[in-house]
Amino acid sequence: MQNQGLLKELIQSLCCLPGVGPKSAQRMAFHLLQRNRDGGMQLSKMLARAVNEIGHCRECRTLTETELCEVCANPLRDAETLCVVESPADVWVIDQATTFKGKYFVLHGRLSPLDGIGPDQLGFELLEQRMATGQIKELILATNSTVEGQATAHFIGEVAGKFNIRATRIAHGVPMGGELEFIDSGTLAHAFNGRREF
Amino acid sequence: MQNQGLLKELIQSLCCLPGVGPKSAQRMAFHLLQRNRDGGMQLSKMLARAVNEIGHCRECRTLTETELCEVCANPLRDAETLCVVESPADVWVIDQATTFKGKYFVLHGRLSPLDGIGPDQLGFELLEQRMATGQIKELILATNSTVEGQATAHFIGEVAGKFNIRATRIAHGVPMGGELEFIDSGTLAHAFNGRREF
Ligand SMILES: [Zn+2]
Ligand SMILES: [Zn+2]
Repeated sequence: MQNQGLLKELIQSLCCLPGVGPKSAQRMAFHLLQRNRDGGMQLSKMLARAVNEIGHCRECRTLTETELCEVCANPLRDAETLCVVESPADVWVIDQATTFKGKYFVLHGRLSPLDGIGPDQLGFELLEQRMATGQIKELILATNSTVEGQATAHFIGEVAGKFNIRATRIAHGVPMGGELEFIDSGTLAHAFNGRREF
Repeated sequence: MQNQGLLKELIQSLCCLPGVGPKSAQRMAFHLLQRNRDGGMQLSKMLARAVNEIGHCRECRTLTETELCEVCANPLRDAETLCVVESPADVWVIDQATTFKGKYFVLHGRLSPLDGIGPDQLGFELLEQRMATGQIKELILATNSTVEGQATAHFIGEVAGKFNIRATRIAHGVPMGGELEFIDSGTLAHAFNGRREF
């Protein structure tokens, strides 16, 4: 049995999912094949479609299968408030947890000179272009509260200053060193409302 | 963002995996799209192949993409000892945890009259055919130690008696009410070696 081809390959493939080790992968494979083949086939199709069709929004750089994401394409969202985050997952949690109705900008990372990640790698050119339009009144810096996230917020805050744009930083309730993605909705909503000048 | 089409559909599809709720599914989707698109595509392909190609072994009814599984096709496995289990996952764990070198028979369930699961649903005809060949000297009853698993073992033990086949039951170390699939290797190996007449 140990060399059983396809089943073993499926178990190995399932291990690419975060938090899934060999034991869980084994349970998942047997569960799908024994009790939910339709679900397995549906998941296969969705994975292929998502990988092939989901790219980045032309304006905010979040994940989307359309040229403009839903937020950027929505005329009812407030274009005067721009929330800068590190990842698309942050957009997702902020939109679910808070009442924020502005727009977003996704850095896809944070400044990390040692890893060769500078402003160019984070889409700063695009971000500066948006600041230069004069439409933005407030820039909410919602990068993570890690050392690098703080440094990134500081850097962007300085740039915002040049454009005379008010920069705020979400603060209260986000534990130092924590990552936004793993914080409960209530804490995040509180941190959002308690943002202050940066 | 809440209505974001493809991403949301992918997250929902991931929830078909056992032990995966909306939060984990969300993390998995973002992880694959941000950091491991090759892994996601590979998983998509393996799922489709597994669902389409993996069926049941003609002889023992375990999961396999070939007509005969590796165990049944292996002439070095002892055809005189047949281990009867409830699921393909049990074959997998027994083969990994013990030194058992006989063959298997998979019931795909257990007797459960209230759910309409009788001998016919568990492949008894095929099992009796194998007993009738006279080749089998020992039938190891490795159904789970739940009430229904015990009843199933008892029923098969009676049938084995008619064919003058020795029936044994794995016993020591398997906690009552426990399911084989979730027991550690050491306990399972011990239970296997400590089997007794049934
Ligand atoms: Zn967008
Ligand atoms: Zn077989």
